[in-house]
Amino acid sequence: MSDALVIFTPSGKRGRFPLGTPVLTAARQLGVDLDSVCGGRGICSKCQITPGYGEFSKHGLTVAPDALSDWNAVEQRYKDKRGLIDGRRLGCQAKVMGNVVIDVPPESQVHRQVVRKAATARAIVMDPATRLYFVEVQEPDMHEPSGDFERLAKALKREWDIPAITAGLDILRKLQPALREGAWRVTVALHKDHRDGPHRVLDIWPGLYEGGLYGLAIDLGSTTIAAHLCDLRTGEVVLSSGIMNPQIRFGEDLMSRVSYAMMNPGGDVDMTRTVRDGMNTLITELSGEAGVTAREIMETVIVCNPVMHHLLLGIDPVELGQAPFALATSDALNLDARALDLHAMNPDARAYLLPCIAGHVGADAAAVALSESPETSDDLVLVVDVGTNAEILLGDKRRVLACSSPTGPAFEGAQISSGQRAAPGAIERLEIDPVTKEPRFRVIGCELWSDEPGFTEATEQTGITGICGSGIIEAVAEMRMAGLVDPSGLIGSAAQTGTWRCQPEGRTHAYVIHDASDAGGPKITVTQGDIRAIQLAKSALYAGARLLMDEIGTERVDRVVLAGAFGAHISPKHAMVLGMIPDALLERVTSAGNAAGTGARIALCNVAARAGIEETVKRIHKVETAIEPRFQEHFVNANALPHAVDSFPELSKIVTLPDVSFNSGDGEGGRRKRRRG
Amino acid sequence: MSDALVIFTPSGKRGRFPLGTPVLTAARQLGVDLDSVCGGRGICSKCQITPGYGEFSKHGLTVAPDALSDWNAVEQRYKDKRGLIDGRRLGCQAKVMGNVVIDVPPESQVHRQVVRKAATARAIVMDPATRLYFVEVQEPDMHEPSGDFERLAKALKREWDIPAITAGLDILRKLQPALREGAWRVTVALHKDHRDGPHRVLDIWPGLYEGGLYGLAIDLGSTTIAAHLCDLRTGEVVLSSGIMNPQIRFGEDLMSRVSYAMMNPGGDVDMTRTVRDGMNTLITELSGEAGVTAREIMETVIVCNPVMHHLLLGIDPVELGQAPFALATSDALNLDARALDLHAMNPDARAYLLPCIAGHVGADAAAVALSESPETSDDLVLVVDVGTNAEILLGDKRRVLACSSPTGPAFEGAQISSGQRAAPGAIERLEIDPVTKEPRFRVIGCELWSDEPGFTEATEQTGITGICGSGIIEAVAEMRMAGLVDPSGLIGSAAQTGTWRCQPEGRTHAYVIHDASDAGGPKITVTQGDIRAIQLAKSALYAGARLLMDEIGTERVDRVVLAGAFGAHISPKHAMVLGMIPDALLERVTSAGNAAGTGARIALCNVAARAGIEETVKRIHKVETAIEPRFQEHFVNANALPHAVDSFPELSKIVTLPDVSFNSGDGEGGRRKRRRG
Repeated sequence: MSDALVIFTPSGKRGRFPLGTPVLTAARQLGVDLDSVCGGRGICSKCQITPGYGEFSKHGLTVAPDALSDWNAVEQRYKDKRGLIDGRRLGCQAKVMGNVVIDVPPESQVHRQVVRKAATARAIVMDPATRLYFVEVQEPDMHEPSGDFERLAKALKREWDIPAITAGLDILRKLQPALREGAWRVTVALHKDHRDGPHRVLDIWPGLYEGGLYGLAIDLGSTTIAAHLCDLRTGEVVLSSGIMNPQIRFGEDLMSRVSYAMMNPGGDVDMTRTVRDGMNTLITELSGEAGVTAREIMETVIVCNPVMHHLLLGIDPVELGQAPFALATSDALNLDARALDLHAMNPDARAYLLPCIAGHVGADAAAVALSESPETSDDLVLVVDVGTNAEILLGDKRRVLACSSPTGPAFEGAQISSGQRAAPGAIERLEIDPVTKEPRFRVIGCELWSDEPGFTEATEQTGITGICGSGIIEAVAEMRMAGLVDPSGLIGSAAQTGTWRCQPEGRTHAYVIHDASDAGGPKITVTQGDIRAIQLAKSALYAGARLLMDEIGTERVDRVVLAGAFGAHISPKHAMVLGMIPDALLERVTSAGNAAGTGARIALCNVAARAGIEETVKRIHKVETAIEPRFQEHFVNANALPHAVDSFPELSKIVTLPDVSFNSGDGEGGRRKRRRG
Repeated sequence: MSDALVIFTPSGKRGRFPLGTPVLTAARQLGVDLDSVCGGRGICSKCQITPGYGEFSKHGLTVAPDALSDWNAVEQRYKDKRGLIDGRRLGCQAKVMGNVVIDVPPESQVHRQVVRKAATARAIVMDPATRLYFVEVQEPDMHEPSGDFERLAKALKREWDIPAITAGLDILRKLQPALREGAWRVTVALHKDHRDGPHRVLDIWPGLYEGGLYGLAIDLGSTTIAAHLCDLRTGEVVLSSGIMNPQIRFGEDLMSRVSYAMMNPGGDVDMTRTVRDGMNTLITELSGEAGVTAREIMETVIVCNPVMHHLLLGIDPVELGQAPFALATSDALNLDARALDLHAMNPDARAYLLPCIAGHVGADAAAVALSESPETSDDLVLVVDVGTNAEILLGDKRRVLACSSPTGPAFEGAQISSGQRAAPGAIERLEIDPVTKEPRFRVIGCELWSDEPGFTEATEQTGITGICGSGIIEAVAEMRMAGLVDPSGLIGSAAQTGTWRCQPEGRTHAYVIHDASDAGGPKITVTQGDIRAIQLAKSALYAGARLLMDEIGTERVDRVVLAGAFGAHISPKHAMVLGMIPDALLERVTSAGNAAGTGARIALCNVAARAGIEETVKRIHKVETAIEPRFQEHFVNANALPHAVDSFPELSKIVTLPDVSFNSGDGEGGRRKRRRG
């Protein structure tokens, strides 16, 4: 027998190879996904495989104990030094000596799948833009006087089939010492351009580099900046963290920041510096906590709305504040992170910004599209991502529409009298007993409800400090369900509602959730103004979704995906009570968590996804809410908190809203509406 | 008649066109080289043409007075505002109405030839990387929500057939205000990548930009930095200037700078900063004097030797100081000028560095090859470029060899007792009367010889301050021809030579050229040490040329091109007396001036030349002098100043060297030679 059958699992790929062929070589020839950084030199251990011995009736094969070459010194040295799971071999050392079945464990697969929490979403397949390559470079020779960089390029072409490379000046500066220290063997981090440009050398190390390789998926919101630190080799999220966007001091919402730029010469420059500083702070904190050095962070994918996009890039967002809301640039951007002053990363790190869909529908919406793939959906799906702006996508395989709706920051707890960001001590869940009108609630940082024993002790540390976004939505919905608020949104008096908790405040009333003012603590209430803020926000959201439904010509959607603040914290039931989202079967309303952040993570972990979303975005049809008269109509019509749930047949099984009505002679709601118009 | 014959001169291109076709349109369809920036909108005036009327017997054509449409209001307005030569028309306005002969004047040709001084050299054809394009961009529209940049790209594709563009963040920042100020008409400066990458937007202006467009050809030498400021539209050299390379304080020659880097941690960083500062100073001075703003300078082409190349790029040159003299990178580089800290240019200006041929044969040698094109020569040509190092090329159509020879800075007047740089007051020409042994000389800044009436008055301002490179070479050659120096290079005493001007100095003698020490002025002499320095330098130069001749297997070259310091100032006759260059017919020794600078200018003015020289350099065979034993042999053998001119048959018709011999018992020359070894 001069050759043998080799079957790889789980791929099922098979082929015959001459005896003596290393398993790694066989895998490569068959296109089996078996990792290797050192190119088969027995030093990186990425190509671990598990041979199977004995009967494989499925394959009609018996694998003899000597089907692979003997365990060798390289493997022993590796095992002694780093450890190797029993039964594992190094694919570059073990040679095929007979018919054999070889399993490639997940951690040896380059393109392994990363598990995502949301069950409905597609899995992330690892294929990051930045990868490590170990190469042996030809030594210089006076008779062949090419430069070290040109010989590195040749080696990468020869050993890894990399067609062309490029590098910045600081890599050229590092190159010669690294080659000599590594005795002409180096590891390079190469960044693949998904648009067919040359690979870019991001870093170089003498010998085999065994440090980390990380990337950042950054969701740059108007209110918060969230970042996931991802291991670019495993796809694992090592650590996630977020900070308030320090730009908030220039204006709470996007339009006030655009105004700031318009009113203050150089104001956009200040805001650019501020957000870049904030991102550096976040990255530094995140990497510090994770024990990752700046040099190990090779790239970032950033998603954000168009105003943040422009402010991050250093472009005055003034055009985004007025029709026709022209973006300076809409295509995806491939940049040096340095061009964004992101110094808390490797000096040659890259930054990728997803494309913007339109002047009001940004790279964050593109990221939601990447995460939720409405363009591949068989049924009509509505994807709603709530932040300070709401990004709304509606579509299926045939057509995808997108719009953005100016909900304002109320859903995030801002512009709410007792509002605060989601932090320990904030009320995040709330229920009101329909009979007693008494509230019970939970605060972030404590698993107990407020009426359970031990709650007081458990919250001694954090206190009860305010209401976050999800809390205020539940509070308003529960107040409505308990008959404390009428369909127009008016809070009743103590007499009208039968609870002392409805107290006068100015010319209107407020509902007291928690009062520690006697002890010098906070008094947490839901005021009439808070109800109005939530009404405005939910009307904008609903109107945006309805507008897309009109455009596509439908009265119903098949399913709803809630993302952003929604996905994380807001309960679908309360959202539907408030009329935030259009009709759907409640069991077909799912939560996608932070879909924009997930989209950023997908683009970070899979370079082909970048080209994919760039194509998808070109096909998404964008609807501009600001110029659609029907948006205003829907907005006005959606203002009420309907007294019946006729339009929510599914919901009526769960809740019945009381038919209450309070004296609304002060016309407060009307004034508010006019002011906004 | 529905169409007419149009004949363009000087190209001779012809074709029939429907009546009413604008001349510019006809020219474009025929591929006639007729310029236009505004794309035929009648505002840039670049498409001026001269129609011919009457008999054209050569073409068998009679052109009627109404062969073109009437002079129109656009042309009249242009003429009133800017002036237009009588008989000229604007090609975009004048329409073909009958058979016509149309001349395209040189200033309306994009690819016009630029005259070069050296008659033998090939002309420069204008085809710069950076050009202006006037475009009308589609206004943004909420129903087609692409970014302004993407619509600019579309306009450039539609109007100018530019396939793709890219831009830095500061261009994105300028884009929106420019488009709006220019009412959606803008001029962009586009830089074409000769390697098929996208065009890069370097700048943008509202409306039609009528300012300047300049580039810098920089010859970065170890001793001096020279720059030519070129108009990228005409190819004209607006102004040239040079400064001493401020790196000189780290070491006079290349190897002492490499040593400095080796001995002082961070020394290379200091040198990088110093040379970049020097370049900025030079650029600022040059543009200030020429009345050109930094923003108007769009690109630079830089040529330099490998050590300067690395120091400019911020790469430690230590590897260039020891075998095998490995370059960090040898290929041509396309960079942002900003990456080299060249802030005295447009912030988006580009920098192109020619490729290096080898560790000792740099981008300056490549530039000489580009200027002199030995690879296209029918006869065997030796090109010698003398700076602190000599770059030597030898070859013809079949094969080109290159080497570098460490001549040291003596040819530039450095390390010479009375040496100085070429500046007013420096002796640049010198003759010695063979009978009286009396010198006569000229100094820079004065047209008179020192024995002519009025010389003293004419040099009162500058004084007579020292000897520059060309002066010392002539002085040594004249001393040899006058019998003051023997074949070994020894200066005779007053008694031996019969002139008081040969005075003792230490254990040897010096020849006094000029003595103003009584009046507190300088005493300018040629010392024995100076003779030795010139002997070493010329031996190195000669040995390098001989080595290439050995390699190619020839005893004679067909012609010699002298470049660098040579071309500018050193006389071929004196060079041959000294034995600096191998045998050739004196009339076949020509001067190419600053060939490296010219090569830089060619690459600046013609982008295709960049691809060309990159290909040529790959085919040049490089010979390393440092490891060739024959180089040492040739070097030692070339040390003498031969007493007969047997080996220079052509020269013997001009000069006869005397057969003198002085006592050389002190062995000074031998010591020097050993020290160098």
